[in-house]
Amino acid sequence: MSFEDIQTPAVLVDLDIAEANIEAYQAYCTKHGLALRPHIKTHKLPFLAKRQLNAGAIGITCQKISEAEAMIADGGINDVLITFNILGAEKLERLKALARKVRLSVVADNTSTVKGLSDAFSDTDSPLTVLVECDTGAERCGVTSPEAAQDLAQVINQSPGLTFGGLMTYPPAGREAEVHDWLTKARDMIEADALQVAVISNGGSPGMWQADAVPVATEYRIGTYVYNDRSLVERGVCDWGDCALTVLATVVSVPAADRAVIDAGTKVLTSDLLGLNGHGHVLGRPDITVDALSEEHGVLRAETIGLDVGDRIRIVPNHVCVVSNMVDEVQLIRGERDFGPSPVSARGKVI
Amino acid sequence: MSFEDIQTPAVLVDLDIAEANIEAYQAYCTKHGLALRPHIKTHKLPFLAKRQLNAGAIGITCQKISEAEAMIADGGINDVLITFNILGAEKLERLKALARKVRLSVVADNTSTVKGLSDAFSDTDSPLTVLVECDTGAERCGVTSPEAAQDLAQVINQSPGLTFGGLMTYPPAGREAEVHDWLTKARDMIEADALQVAVISNGGSPGMWQADAVPVATEYRIGTYVYNDRSLVERGVCDWGDCALTVLATVVSVPAADRAVIDAGTKVLTSDLLGLNGHGHVLGRPDITVDALSEEHGVLRAETIGLDVGDRIRIVPNHVCVVSNMVDEVQLIRGERDFGPSPVSARGKVI
Repeated sequence: MSFEDIQTPAVLVDLDIAEANIEAYQAYCTKHGLALRPHIKTHKLPFLAKRQLNAGAIGITCQKISEAEAMIADGGINDVLITFNILGAEKLERLKALARKVRLSVVADNTSTVKGLSDAFSDTDSPLTVLVECDTGAERCGVTSPEAAQDLAQVINQSPGLTFGGLMTYPPAGREAEVHDWLTKARDMIEADALQVAVISNGGSPGMWQADAVPVATEYRIGTYVYNDRSLVERGVCDWGDCALTVLATVVSVPAADRAVIDAGTKVLTSDLLGLNGHGHVLGRPDITVDALSEEHGVLRAETIGLDVGDRIRIVPNHVCVVSNMVDEVQLIRGERDFGPSPVSARGKVI
Repeated sequence: MSFEDIQTPAVLVDLDIAEANIEAYQAYCTKHGLALRPHIKTHKLPFLAKRQLNAGAIGITCQKISEAEAMIADGGINDVLITFNILGAEKLERLKALARKVRLSVVADNTSTVKGLSDAFSDTDSPLTVLVECDTGAERCGVTSPEAAQDLAQVINQSPGLTFGGLMTYPPAGREAEVHDWLTKARDMIEADALQVAVISNGGSPGMWQADAVPVATEYRIGTYVYNDRSLVERGVCDWGDCALTVLATVVSVPAADRAVIDAGTKVLTSDLLGLNGHGHVLGRPDITVDALSEEHGVLRAETIGLDVGDRIRIVPNHVCVVSNMVDEVQLIRGERDFGPSPVSARGKVI
């Protein structure tokens, strides 16, 4: 199949760019003595995870059990961190099955989660590694003070079937010094209790080039960097040429001189704004605004739209991690050479 | 499987409520002499489309060819309108295959689309019915004046392989009189050319109870009404008890007295706001705001959150049509009795 034969709307992944992104950030982590543990939520493709591992990553990060199951199904991925409080009998059974297949660690920020994990793993041969999730300012999950981290580390340490593995945080962007102080204080308090803090896992794409400003961290989790997106370009993290994922769309209507309509709407591009105006960047046409989306239509506006019905455009979406999750397959390309479709193995795995 | 065994996050569809919604709006259309042609983008479930047809609908509406293919695969659906400009050789071939299986009509708002349709269908035995899409103020697709509608109707009428079928509009909400005048003028001009305007297709859920205020229309297309959602409740179109689709989520963290975190984020609820604040309505807890979503986490806030880790909540999403598209299967229920999963046959069909 040639590039021209790709049916639209399509999610294109340029492997040349993705591979360069993988190499560049691995080099950064290696230089700064950080272990890299990519979050696969962005691509959900086992073959790309393996490229990340081959480049030097120590393992992968997943957010949900079903996502991890899909990623390891083909083999070749042997180290998984699930950064989510796992609850409930069925999920704990699936977690035990996962633990028999790969080196597994999880996080917890509360005693109910720890008790469930302990009850499930107390009858197994090898204990489950559990990190304490820390809220260092992002106000999502996480214990909210170093003292609470110290307490939960003790609870994990005393729970049958579990091993205390360290600390994990999803940090607030741009507040590296604060994050470093928080984690350092927690580490010192826990180590004063004669417990080893083997791993301190930090992460997040917006602060990827400031990861070295949290030197207490031992590893960095990052997802978006493999593709990059408009949100990262607009924040100065990368450039348009570093964006590996684009949405290929066809102009289906040009109702006015300042307006065109494409065949991609929220069911491909999603409504994620991430603080931006508009729904994406049209490559080569910075004057165009992706002004409004409905489910299957996108409305483009420009002073002079200059597009004809049937023209194709490529859009860098605001947020790639949600876009690759919208389609059953992405189209792998190198430049404008087409390498064909690849199923998005972990798409829709939210359980 | 009992209700308690449903793994979260899950998209629940209460069939009692969906069936009542189907009956209620069919009764409205019958009373006002409007043909009802439900848009299946909301549920993407063939069995629910058949219930809509059994209740009296004349056919279904789809936005994309792949969506229509998925909906008719099991049989029992024989009349499809695709409300999209279809372009390109492969899609036109698929459209021809569809036309051999069902009574098919499409729309066009430009001569390029009409030429493509004509080239594809000129060698077939039965002509394809094409409606002129009209922009009556919503500024999406559509010819922008009654004069342009008249011109395009003539082009369709003179194109081999095509039959002019009438007019179609996706109207601006709340401007019924304007829409009626626009369509009436276009109809009268076209009929003055001795062309019959057999169908005038209007649609949209926000204005569903004002459909009778556009009496020139012969049919109404509507999707959301089958499930309803927060956007329609907030606009006074329906009540919480009319909402058939809810997202079942588990509280996974309660980091503070005013905050809890659930296991559903944008990869289930999506980021669609539709002009609202917050990301959904927690049934039974109007004091809670679904304040922030990341991909797999939702952050709930209230003066006193009053939830424990492991508690389950049900959320009416802002926009149901995009939520059912996020999951491979929905869980069918009646009240809190569980009837098991149903695959979302047309999920992700955007081509």
